[in-house]
Amino acid sequence: MYAPNTKIIDIGRRPIEDYVFEAVISFQEGVDEIILKGRGDFISRAVDVYWALKDRLGDSIELSNVEIGSERIRGRMRSYIAIHIKRKY
Amino acid sequence: MYAPNTKIIDIGRRPIEDYVFEAVISFQEGVDEIILKGRGDFISRAVDVYWALKDRLGDSIELSNVEIGSERIRGRMRSYIAIHIKRKY
Repeated sequence: MYAPNTKIIDIGRRPIEDYVFEAVISFQEGVDEIILKGRGDFISRAVDVYWALKDRLGDSIELSNVEIGSERIRGRMRSYIAIHIKRKY
Repeated sequence: MYAPNTKIIDIGRRPIEDYVFEAVISFQEGVDEIILKGRGDFISRAVDVYWALKDRLGDSIELSNVEIGSERIRGRMRSYIAIHIKRKY
C-alpha cells in the first residue's frame, strides 16, 4: 500500500514536540516519506504536528497528500486523517 | 480565490446534522462546490461532517481536495482544514 521507505507515526496524547522529534529523527535516518495518522479527536493534533514539523524543517519537506478516511474500530466508524510528508533533500 | 459557485461552511459547535443539512440544501440550490472549513479543535469535526454528508449523498458528491493550513488568529497560529467537495450530478 505504501512505499517501503515510509514511516507511519500515530498521533495520540503525547506532547506535539515528541512527534516532531520522532519525525525529524526518521528523516535523518533516511526515511523518504512520513505519514502522520490521527484518528477521531487526534485529527486536529495531527495537523498541529504537521505545522510544528514544517516550522522546524521548512523547505526541506513537502506535503505530498492529505487523505481523510473513515474506518470501523470496535464496531464504531471513526474518522481519520493521514498527512503524507516527503523529504525533498 | 475560489470558484464563484462555491459555498464555505464554517464548522463549529453546532450538531453535525446541522452542517450536513446546510450542505445538502446548498447543493440542491445549485452550489457546485462546498468547502467545509474547520479550525483548531474543529478540524476533527469537519472530517466527521464530511463522512456524515458522504453517507447521506453517496456517489453524487466527490472529495476534490483536502487542504491543511495555518493562519494567524488574534496573534496565535491556528491550524485549519478545508475539505473541498464537488457535486457530480
